[in-house]
Amino acid sequence: MSRWEPNARGRLEQAAMELYGERGYEKTTVTEIAGRAGLTERTFFRHYADKREVLFGGSVALQGLLVDTLAEAPASASPIDAVAVALQATAAVFDERREQSRRRQEIIAANVELQERELVKLDSLAAALAGALRERGVPEPAASLAGEAGVAVFKVAFGRWIGGSGEPGMGACIQEVLDELKAVTAGGRT
Amino acid sequence: MSRWEPNARGRLEQAAMELYGERGYEKTTVTEIAGRAGLTERTFFRHYADKREVLFGGSVALQGLLVDTLAEAPASASPIDAVAVALQATAAVFDERREQSRRRQEIIAANVELQERELVKLDSLAAALAGALRERGVPEPAASLAGEAGVAVFKVAFGRWIGGSGEPGMGACIQEVLDELKAVTAGGRT
Repeated sequence: MSRWEPNARGRLEQAAMELYGERGYEKTTVTEIAGRAGLTERTFFRHYADKREVLFGGSVALQGLLVDTLAEAPASASPIDAVAVALQATAAVFDERREQSRRRQEIIAANVELQERELVKLDSLAAALAGALRERGVPEPAASLAGEAGVAVFKVAFGRWIGGSGEPGMGACIQEVLDELKAVTAGGRT
Repeated sequence: MSRWEPNARGRLEQAAMELYGERGYEKTTVTEIAGRAGLTERTFFRHYADKREVLFGGSVALQGLLVDTLAEAPASASPIDAVAVALQATAAVFDERREQSRRRQEIIAANVELQERELVKLDSLAAALAGALRERGVPEPAASLAGEAGVAVFKVAFGRWIGGSGEPGMGACIQEVLDELKAVTAGGRT
């Protein structure tokens, strides 16, 4: 086996998702994941710290995309508009990976430890958004609140998108939920 | 030792907080907590499932107070105003327990497992607020968004209150942060 494995990360993720779906997250071992992917355990641990992290590689990429997009939003954009631009930048990624997102969500919903990890990632995402807003000169507590609002919109929009038929897409769900948050905080009866 | 121990819960909490502060959460055992409180381990386990739960008894009480106050808010109150009334009802509890809240926060900040637990409790709080709003006839996604907004305001307000001098009190911090959230979501530059 060559030491450089083409797309090892993706193959390991694919194998892990299949096994978690077939026999459950708890009962799946790293040995089995590596075997299904046609790779060694050693290769697994070059890419992921443990079997939990396989489910959260996408969270790191998502946070990077959000922070980078936010940093590049027009200087004239208000904090909430900059956050909205960043959220919208993720919509295509989700629409392209809908089935995978749905299966991941089912695996996480079935395991308390994974749910805790997901909450930690979302909390870290809110902090990263707040940090990127402070870089743009947004003061506290506005930066933290816009970061928290962004994550709240993301959570609720994702739930609607994943629980629905896929139409409208993630972008429309984000816009709809953001408009609703604005109406709610403005004191509307909705 | 009598089987009914006056204020056993409070004594155990007090002893646990002292020990966590003195020697750290990880190094403290249930045996030590019970000993410091002048109680038995058996009594400890009648009140708390494990040493982690001693730090989160207040979270359960807080959630109950928020949900009950929200349920009793005037029927004419908008979702965000009902959430604001509920948050304000907790202010006196915090102001009375400032030193204890500060010590608890330090213990949690020093331990990743406790931070995860805190996030789980806050997520459960957002869900409870959303549930209480649905009981009042608020539709989705407004109920979930108002619940998430309430928790965001609480988190940021608590951070300002605990990081400050105690003046202004928690109630003023909640009001200030809520006003700021309204300005942020309305698209203000702040």
